[in-house]
Amino acid sequence: MTWRKRTDLAVEARQLWCERTGRAGALAGVKERKEQREGYEVTEVEVVDQRGAQALGKPVGRYVTVELGGLHRREGDAFGRGARVLAQMLSGLLPPGKGTVLVVGLGNRAITPDVIGPAAVESVLVTRHLVEQEPRYFGSFRPVAALSPGVLGTTGMESGALVKAVAEDLKPQCIVAVDALAARSIHRLCTTVQLTDTGIVPGSGVGNARAALDAQTLGVPVIAVGVPTVVDGATLAADLLEQAGQETDPRLLRQLDGGGMVVTTRDIDQQAADLAKVIGYGITLALQPQLSMEDLQMLLN
Amino acid sequence: MTWRKRTDLAVEARQLWCERTGRAGALAGVKERKEQREGYEVTEVEVVDQRGAQALGKPVGRYVTVELGGLHRREGDAFGRGARVLAQMLSGLLPPGKGTVLVVGLGNRAITPDVIGPAAVESVLVTRHLVEQEPRYFGSFRPVAALSPGVLGTTGMESGALVKAVAEDLKPQCIVAVDALAARSIHRLCTTVQLTDTGIVPGSGVGNARAALDAQTLGVPVIAVGVPTVVDGATLAADLLEQAGQETDPRLLRQLDGGGMVVTTRDIDQQAADLAKVIGYGITLALQPQLSMEDLQMLLN
Amino acid sequence: MTWRKRTDLAVEARQLWCERTGRAGALAGVKERKEQREGYEVTEVEVVDQRGAQALGKPVGRYVTVELGGLHRREGDAFGRGARVLAQMLSGLLPPGKGTVLVVGLGNRAITPDVIGPAAVESVLVTRHLVEQEPRYFGSFRPVAALSPGVLGTTGMESGALVKAVAEDLKPQCIVAVDALAARSIHRLCTTVQLTDTGIVPGSGVGNARAALDAQTLGVPVIAVGVPTVVDGATLAADLLEQAGQETDPRLLRQLDGGGMVVTTRDIDQQAADLAKVIGYGITLALQPQLSMEDLQMLLN
Amino acid sequence: MTWRKRTDLAVEARQLWCERTGRAGALAGVKERKEQREGYEVTEVEVVDQRGAQALGKPVGRYVTVELGGLHRREGDAFGRGARVLAQMLSGLLPPGKGTVLVVGLGNRAITPDVIGPAAVESVLVTRHLVEQEPRYFGSFRPVAALSPGVLGTTGMESGALVKAVAEDLKPQCIVAVDALAARSIHRLCTTVQLTDTGIVPGSGVGNARAALDAQTLGVPVIAVGVPTVVDGATLAADLLEQAGQETDPRLLRQLDGGGMVVTTRDIDQQAADLAKVIGYGITLALQPQLSMEDLQMLLN
Repeated sequence: MTWRKRTDLAVEARQLWCERTGRAGALAGVKERKEQREGYEVTEVEVVDQRGAQALGKPVGRYVTVELGGLHRREGDAFGRGARVLAQMLSGLLPPGKGTVLVVGLGNRAITPDVIGPAAVESVLVTRHLVEQEPRYFGSFRPVAALSPGVLGTTGMESGALVKAVAEDLKPQCIVAVDALAARSIHRLCTTVQLTDTGIVPGSGVGNARAALDAQTLGVPVIAVGVPTVVDGATLAADLLEQAGQETDPRLLRQLDGGGMVVTTRDIDQQAADLAKVIGYGITLALQPQLSMEDLQMLLN
Repeated sequence: MTWRKRTDLAVEARQLWCERTGRAGALAGVKERKEQREGYEVTEVEVVDQRGAQALGKPVGRYVTVELGGLHRREGDAFGRGARVLAQMLSGLLPPGKGTVLVVGLGNRAITPDVIGPAAVESVLVTRHLVEQEPRYFGSFRPVAALSPGVLGTTGMESGALVKAVAEDLKPQCIVAVDALAARSIHRLCTTVQLTDTGIVPGSGVGNARAALDAQTLGVPVIAVGVPTVVDGATLAADLLEQAGQETDPRLLRQLDGGGMVVTTRDIDQQAADLAKVIGYGITLALQPQLSMEDLQMLLN
Repeated sequence: MTWRKRTDLAVEARQLWCERTGRAGALAGVKERKEQREGYEVTEVEVVDQRGAQALGKPVGRYVTVELGGLHRREGDAFGRGARVLAQMLSGLLPPGKGTVLVVGLGNRAITPDVIGPAAVESVLVTRHLVEQEPRYFGSFRPVAALSPGVLGTTGMESGALVKAVAEDLKPQCIVAVDALAARSIHRLCTTVQLTDTGIVPGSGVGNARAALDAQTLGVPVIAVGVPTVVDGATLAADLLEQAGQETDPRLLRQLDGGGMVVTTRDIDQQAADLAKVIGYGITLALQPQLSMEDLQMLLN
Repeated sequence: MTWRKRTDLAVEARQLWCERTGRAGALAGVKERKEQREGYEVTEVEVVDQRGAQALGKPVGRYVTVELGGLHRREGDAFGRGARVLAQMLSGLLPPGKGTVLVVGLGNRAITPDVIGPAAVESVLVTRHLVEQEPRYFGSFRPVAALSPGVLGTTGMESGALVKAVAEDLKPQCIVAVDALAARSIHRLCTTVQLTDTGIVPGSGVGNARAALDAQTLGVPVIAVGVPTVVDGATLAADLLEQAGQETDPRLLRQLDGGGMVVTTRDIDQQAADLAKVIGYGITLALQPQLSMEDLQMLLN
């Protein structure tokens, strides 16, 4: 089997296709669009049909990438602008309606680069019980439930199976799933957020193949919000070797592949915490458009 | 409505009945038995029929209380003996068989006196996935899954409903649920463990009434493992006033009742962590009787 | 020895004096003043001379109490107003000048009601190294260093001795020390902040007598910022008995006294985190008056 | 200036010297010795004089490396054997005597690969206060104090300056300092422990140059216990390029150098926690040789 550079980001898959094929410019079955929003760069890659899906190795659907680089530099209202741009892009992917939304934080709370999902969920305003118990005050809120299903190693259950069991009981209108991703470029670590209406697909980059969480397996639309927190060691090595004008030795790469080695930033703990918070705020703003950032700062931690 | 001193412990309910009625000795519908095991005092209160259930305010079933006082004093092998006595008593309550067990950690991870359930689950050996994926090595293990469903305020879902949804998918042979309790006596805080085959019943002491988790609601036997981590403020006040020979003023008690005031020990953080660990080990020894304490120390953290 | 109700708050000591003596009105050697600031009630008790010191059991000095009750209700800009009122009152107690300030977080990070000090320090903007290393950007900032010296049981060293050793090396112009206190009234838990120019005095309420941290022992002015997070069990019991018209039995109180029993609120974890943050922001605003709340939100977590 | 592959381990520096010079065998001014202890491989590199110091870029002194690979595989009594071998090797480096020892945990508690120092200190038995306060029970214990001085960014003070201030007050007989290191090989991450009597030297691998903590700066012998938790990104890249038979491009390496990129293992959180505990136990066994592993399990968490 051919070893392939690994990325969960559609924008990087697009770029890898160019490099592999040596072709620039348009790619059949894929549309691309860039814009600036709230001072951040937003790229949408749309995989229109099977030609595009095969070329990029990504299912048909929309992939919106937001570059939140400025968040770390804590420039003027970087946090508020970041939450707003995420809210805007997420709103564009959500199915219309006001029904219950289940927000799912995937990943292992005990592993720093994997904590993004559960940590983001802690910054989401959970309202389902309030809407039911206190309709007088919360009647205008959209019902939101939240779940961090853990990982197979600590629960003995596939997170997908667990989400499915809960979704069958809860019957949400849609699911928003937050997860850590693998990127190809170290410059994207904890700076890029990818939103997609295709759900979470198997073979995801952070390592362990997991069952898909998508409309087909869960029965309701699944919007995935992903953040690259690691670069796969073998992918980085291949890139370095190529930059040095060197053919990649597949044996070396497979050896690196098996080592569980990941590349990350020294301050991943803080960066993951920052990004989780902006994602939680962004999801909440998208689901409760009547609230302002000031409201959220009072209602959330 | 009459205000009543609050306790989740059957042994204390038994004692309160004596105080209320002014009667000592036998109570119709209730059997009691004391013994020493592994150097710890074990009391079993069995509520035999409805007369007993009404007198104690507890459903028909068996309530085993283990006094783990010595754990704090860290006397010779206190931890190992504590895990073993819990395993023995739990084994006596489990239905016969080798089927899948779902261990549930109830309570809010973010509130110290409530952390016992989720923390205990972290010290349970989860094996369900290993038995399936690695039958060669783990074929002789009992399949164990684990779930900490959080609380309504952070998930928007009743923990009971969440456990039910998962149990319907997982179809375990039985459920072991760990939870924090309220005691009447401050001397029982983080020293007493109550095991019962009646599940978790509504109106539980720590505060918020929750839906029952028992065989009736979940469809499989539910063994509850509970640890008192707080004393209800109003109950303590009433006891103090009585010790001082004073009639209790119901208005004062109701006022205290509303304040969310709890009495606990200064070092509750450490004590809850210690007890959660011994409970997790005890549950694991009961479910995997082929393992020794040394095995557990290698397999668990 | 006479048993006395325990409080670290000068306002409560003032009230206890009235109750003990049966006298209302003026107290020789003590001045009192109330005002509203930023929507919060502020009380200043000034112990003017030894008559006042003896009556209240507090050294001569100023004790400013801010009631931050609204913080929990998260009313309109409660956090910002809270930080500002603390900054204003702290500024009034700080000695004039722009020299280095050492902020000290006292208490045990591993015990929830004791975490206020170390947690508040984490929300203080530390600048000393920046002023030295990057004078171009930070030349106008006041140099601030921070230290959480831990507790005797985990370091083997008195926190006072540790602070003294560091202060002798650092030579700060003054020290701001944040600590948990004991109150008499459960209504003050995590709602009241006391600021005083007398430093931290021995026999502090949370339990273990510690060496004083004051101008005399440390050689520089010490401003203490304290928050009651527990009520002493025996003090509460005595209050309850009195409310019920009952003489207090000293033996009962001494028994309660020895038990390490404390009364706190169920959600102390969250409340302590909230208050620590507002205190950290308040201290930073007082020391860096050129910064706005928006600046702090960008510079601090 | 020449870019050099970075490692804090003397055994790797030794190997790099061979690679750079193309020479195998003996190196003037350096002695090497291997042995098996408690089932683990132990290597001692002794830098005898300035020739050796210059060749390896390490000061004159002894560097003992213990390979704790089996710890992760949790083989039979791996933890106990690991603690014992560390205790034996540390005992060989400690100056003779029974005086007070100050154990210092260097590094930032909030950054996972840096948490080793502070976490190890939490597993050290602190006795100084007990020896003083309870001589009847603890008179035979060696007085041990512990300090985690934090990092410049969170305290505003150099950790070396802080340790020095405390040491001048405490006057310990020697200091044991635990710190995270950078290795060259990813196989050494969280498996190798280096003990040395040279203290902590500037330019340490994890990134920020810090002031030396050694006998010269602190006035007492400093034994350093270090664990590689990251591989420097540029060093790894250079190694990969060489394995692929490619000259390293200094510009590429300098670029990687600046990015703060580190390579680590996915489960660094758990591995760092495990290693910190075995180090804490090993230090305690070395300082209190009268205690057994069973004693430690009772006295420590």
